Amino acid sequence: MPEDAVASPAEALLRAVEADDQSAILSLAAETHYADLAQAYQELEEEQHPVFLNSIGPELAADMVVELPEGMIEEALDHFRPAELKILFRELSDDDRVDILQAVGDEARLRFLGLLGPEDEELTRSLLRYEYDTAGGRMTTRFGRLFASMTVKQAIEYLRRDQENTETLSRIFVVDARGHLIGRVRLRDLAFNTWDTPIRDIMEEVGPEQRVLATADQEEAAHLLLKYDLIVLPVVDEFDHMLGIITHDDAMEILQEESTEDFERFGGIAADQEESTYLSADPLNHFRRRAGWLVGLAFVSILSGYVMMRFGSVLSQVFVLSLFLPMVVAAGGNSGGQATTMVIRAMSLNELVKGTGLRVAWKELRTGFMLGLLLGLCMALFTAFVLPAFKPGLPAGIGYPRLAFSVAVALTAQVTSATFLGSLLPFGARAVKLDPAVVSAPAIAAIVDVSGMVIYFTVARALLGL
Amino acid sequence: MPEDAVASPAEALLRAVEADDQSAILSLAAETHYADLAQAYQELEEEQHPVFLNSIGPELAADMVVELPEGMIEEALDHFRPAELKILFRELSDDDRVDILQAVGDEARLRFLGLLGPEDEELTRSLLRYEYDTAGGRMTTRFGRLFASMTVKQAIEYLRRDQENTETLSRIFVVDARGHLIGRVRLRDLAFNTWDTPIRDIMEEVGPEQRVLATADQEEAAHLLLKYDLIVLPVVDEFDHMLGIITHDDAMEILQEESTEDFERFGGIAADQEESTYLSADPLNHFRRRAGWLVGLAFVSILSGYVMMRFGSVLSQVFVLSLFLPMVVAAGGNSGGQATTMVIRAMSLNELVKGTGLRVAWKELRTGFMLGLLLGLCMALFTAFVLPAFKPGLPAGIGYPRLAFSVAVALTAQVTSATFLGSLLPFGARAVKLDPAVVSAPAIAAIVDVSGMVIYFTVARALLGL
Repeated sequence: MPEDAVASPAEALLRAVEADDQSAILSLAAETHYADLAQAYQELEEEQHPVFLNSIGPELAADMVVELPEGMIEEALDHFRPAELKILFRELSDDDRVDILQAVGDEARLRFLGLLGPEDEELTRSLLRYEYDTAGGRMTTRFGRLFASMTVKQAIEYLRRDQENTETLSRIFVVDARGHLIGRVRLRDLAFNTWDTPIRDIMEEVGPEQRVLATADQEEAAHLLLKYDLIVLPVVDEFDHMLGIITHDDAMEILQEESTEDFERFGGIAADQEESTYLSADPLNHFRRRAGWLVGLAFVSILSGYVMMRFGSVLSQVFVLSLFLPMVVAAGGNSGGQATTMVIRAMSLNELVKGTGLRVAWKELRTGFMLGLLLGLCMALFTAFVLPAFKPGLPAGIGYPRLAFSVAVALTAQVTSATFLGSLLPFGARAVKLDPAVVSAPAIAAIVDVSGMVIYFTVARALLGL
Repeated sequence: MPEDAVASPAEALLRAVEADDQSAILSLAAETHYADLAQAYQELEEEQHPVFLNSIGPELAADMVVELPEGMIEEALDHFRPAELKILFRELSDDDRVDILQAVGDEARLRFLGLLGPEDEELTRSLLRYEYDTAGGRMTTRFGRLFASMTVKQAIEYLRRDQENTETLSRIFVVDARGHLIGRVRLRDLAFNTWDTPIRDIMEEVGPEQRVLATADQEEAAHLLLKYDLIVLPVVDEFDHMLGIITHDDAMEILQEESTEDFERFGGIAADQEESTYLSADPLNHFRRRAGWLVGLAFVSILSGYVMMRFGSVLSQVFVLSLFLPMVVAAGGNSGGQATTMVIRAMSLNELVKGTGLRVAWKELRTGFMLGLLLGLCMALFTAFVLPAFKPGLPAGIGYPRLAFSVAVALTAQVTSATFLGSLLPFGARAVKLDPAVVSAPAIAAIVDVSGMVIYFTVARALLGL
């Protein structure tokens, strides 16, 4: 089979751009999913953007632009003339339009708002009142809405007329005369029931827990969709008026964004203002997101160095103590980091509600103690039975058994305390309203490095009589 | 407002169990979503399980059991008599039934299979052939299916007859006479078109990229649903016969599981065989998942200790070198961990396809060099201008400027090499078919601890003339 036959749509497109073949670009783009279009666009060089965008035109570009990383959106839109932008914005659903306006600069936002029709402009302005990361900021107002007093026949006609303006009819919501959310019907209930059946009789009630306030955090909305296996979640105001819906695909995106944020934060990386992808961010962007923690933690590490310097005489008396120092210190960072990892992930899966801190602390104290004992035992055996073969040279008066015992005690103390501390710090962060994931792996390591040094030297001095 | 009025359904249920009030349990459970039921069940003491399960009965228990952590499922099912289990299994959709059978032991699986009706048993056995973590293992066969040759009227009648057996009608798939997937229609297209319209005319083609092989990894399926904003993804065999669907809620669960796995693995924690939640796992389970890495990495750390011991004379000549040793070493772990974090997350978001390794390496080399320079500069300034105030005492012939320069050079070398290494190791893991996240934060730290020691002492010896 020739290579050409298996080329993905995105690859064929890239070749057409390379060849500057505008009509091939257009016909290929028309057959390509917007998610693939966005992927292809991101692989282009910047000087190829104009020919690509002009070839596909504003209608095809609309859905694609939504999929781009935030930092690329304004640049892409600037390649279109105002008349084309009008078409592009008209193609977008209301929530996508709002997402785009939230991604561009203030000047561009005002300019773009001026291009919308009066109705769209009013709707968009009202949605822009909600922060980007709230349920209101992510919702679409294009949902199927029926009144409880309608019959199936009236409902079908009403929905058909409104068809253009609804994003999904997978779930259709029923409101009372004053717009309060009271129930939902499925399209299949309409299709499979007789025309004179009242909507009230076939609707299913929507429980108070299966709706979200417009001002609630977007993550709350996503977790509700996940928990209750919903396709759409209704968004209401504080008086229970139905305002819009959040759909399953938004929820998936929100959960992915949240996981990325947790993961990166835990790795000691600051949030990305531009929401770029790894490859689209230049080294300077990567540098900015990492430099803060790196420099801050370096100064914390000087404390470890200070402890080490103070106990320098101990190390020069018993050279072999150096052999275990990095291990005792690192074991704290590793076990503390493990505990923090477990707690932070459980928190973001909503497994650790308020009041579970004590249970977690008790569990981790026992886990840490067991881990410390095991590690201590392993290293004691190593010290007593393997180390002598290397003849490292011990000072007079200190035998291998005593050294083994000291190492084991220090390790047990260090691992137990680090595990305990690592599990509690995320609760501390949460108590002062910080994201628990700010307790990053590097941060916990830096902290228990200091305690590890102190524990190690104190135990060695006491048990070896130095 | 009295406390009672705001109690969540789950809380009211827990109180009814406390009071051993079986009829209250049943009536409350009937109004409670199965996700909330499962949550309430997990908060019960083990001796309360029988009264709870017997009160709600097999029909309500069915959907709840699916939501439990894997380790709790078999115990829950064992509280029911065979006749009740028959009812419970009949209530379940085919994919949930398979999930449950995959969660229980071999003996229980055979016993439960014997309780199914002949048709269900055959279907279940055929689904059990797929591994749990493949698209086939997660799919349901209860999807809406039409033939291209039908009219809208025939289609609606066909679907109505089949209604009981379909999980979702949000998307209905169209097959040809031999069962090959050729398109899809939306229920609204049926509801809003005249009865004599041929399905062929209103169906939308399903592109080759918007389907997944039954043997493909479940993550591939989830990523397709996410990328193309789908509610359902069709699952096919190698001849393109339509076998089933994977729904948006499965995809969300898969993505969450995958993020948890990455997060924990990166934190140096082994996979959980029992898929328990944080609180439901006992300390022994936590211990087992963490002990392996902890002990393994401890032995790697002895290498660092060995390097330190070998250079012990350098430290005793210039005590102040101890002050910076932990910092230089930790800066490597921190910056290497940051690079690994970014690369692993980008990989699991599918941003780093094959052939991007060189671009990543080049980006990280520059980022690491900038970070190293910055950190080196900060510490050089600290050494030259702040440190002298503390009078740490330098040996004759070594001034603060020379010490500052040495520290800066060592830091730059350590951060640059650690960042570079941290970004490449996940590619290495992927190349040998390992999950990139096995390159955990503790692992990268242990590795660059050793190189940090060597770099620091080598630079100090060379530049300070020791």
